[in-house]
Amino acid sequence: MTYCVGLKMERGLVFMSDTRTNAGMDNISTFRKMFTWCDEGETYVTLMTAGNLATTQAVVSLLDERSKAPSERHPAILQMPSMFQIARYVGATLREVIAQSSTTGERAESYFNATLIVGGQVKGSEPRLFLIYPEGNFIEAGDDTPFLQIGEFKYGRPILVRAFDPAMSFEAAVKLLLVSFDSTIKANLSVGLPLDLQIYERDSLRRGIQRRIKAEDSYFRTISSGWGEALKQAFDSLPDLTL
Amino acid sequence: MTYCVGLKMERGLVFMSDTRTNAGMDNISTFRKMFTWCDEGETYVTLMTAGNLATTQAVVSLLDERSKAPSERHPAILQMPSMFQIARYVGATLREVIAQSSTTGERAESYFNATLIVGGQVKGSEPRLFLIYPEGNFIEAGDDTPFLQIGEFKYGRPILVRAFDPAMSFEAAVKLLLVSFDSTIKANLSVGLPLDLQIYERDSLRRGIQRRIKAEDSYFRTISSGWGEALKQAFDSLPDLTL
Repeated sequence: MTYCVGLKMERGLVFMSDTRTNAGMDNISTFRKMFTWCDEGETYVTLMTAGNLATTQAVVSLLDERSKAPSERHPAILQMPSMFQIARYVGATLREVIAQSSTTGERAESYFNATLIVGGQVKGSEPRLFLIYPEGNFIEAGDDTPFLQIGEFKYGRPILVRAFDPAMSFEAAVKLLLVSFDSTIKANLSVGLPLDLQIYERDSLRRGIQRRIKAEDSYFRTISSGWGEALKQAFDSLPDLTL
Repeated sequence: MTYCVGLKMERGLVFMSDTRTNAGMDNISTFRKMFTWCDEGETYVTLMTAGNLATTQAVVSLLDERSKAPSERHPAILQMPSMFQIARYVGATLREVIAQSSTTGERAESYFNATLIVGGQVKGSEPRLFLIYPEGNFIEAGDDTPFLQIGEFKYGRPILVRAFDPAMSFEAAVKLLLVSFDSTIKANLSVGLPLDLQIYERDSLRRGIQRRIKAEDSYFRTISSGWGEALKQAFDSLPDLTL
């Protein structure tokens, strides 16, 4: 599996993804699941992927126009007039790749499925964040649900539900994501380090901070061990039941 | 779905289960999923169930010997010489019920599946705790993994992994379970109040504290709201990343 989270914040967008892929328990690898396209001053788009790796890599290659010679590539994703059009384009590409891989018949439970998060900003409009289903349709993060998750989302969801606030700082948002990812990594072998982080500042229309967080990252280790302690203290601070 | 947890502690065993069942989103009900048999001074057994309700109710009725007249019932489960034999007996009963319900062929993905947690003590031996699979085989909680979960276990697992300690008091264990259940209930509609709680004190060989925790329970409300605050404080206590 995979775990990816996109946050829609007042200050911009924050993306985090893990890098573990597995085909069975005995065949695990590290692959990037976060991809960014940027035409500085015009359009910024980040995509995160969960699901069949052949499908998601094909989608990224098509969006990148890798079927053309490098000099002729002007990714269509960077020429769309709105984030809504970008989401539609990514959704259509995903559906097309899945349809090509799927055998005829038995379409209901495709082994080639994938789910995507796409977020970004086009000059003149607001930053937007979408979750794209294998069928190519999508939902958008809004004020009521300002974050989107794909992959093994259950372990890390309670802390996001409790603590995420779109008004928080980028620094606090990264801390929150690390707590959510650490809880997931501790509970599920199919999600693993290193993590990819991308921060997009509203209206900047350029690549922001990109970072790869490895197992030996000192901040990640501080959060991982500190959270265990902090949780225990939080737990101890609540009153016991009188039996 | 369902959420049930069994804790194997130094002082004894603690069981908690929710009560929500659903056949689709528009057909939800409240059913007990925790059942206790006790022959005071000899044998104590508690069973918790997740999965197809017809299957689990049939298993409980068979264990209860409800096919006999009330006066002739001497549940075999209370006449076994060991907890291991009790787990085997419960497992065999479960497998038998599933086999009877299943259509011939297509056995791999049975709609009649259920998973059980059974724990207790037989005079002269230690308290033991088992998780029984639909196939009738089972695993036992040990020192390395002193708790077992069935049903929608992912949301509430990180806090158990971080904070459960078999040496803690029953009071603290109940608090921990309520935090784990509250996180699950907040994230998943298929797990719901009221909760059933059962505490078995080692070597007592009698029913211990039984309680039904309803939505209006003041302690539950204290934990539910207090945990949100405590988590935020724990989160704030960790250092921010310098971006």
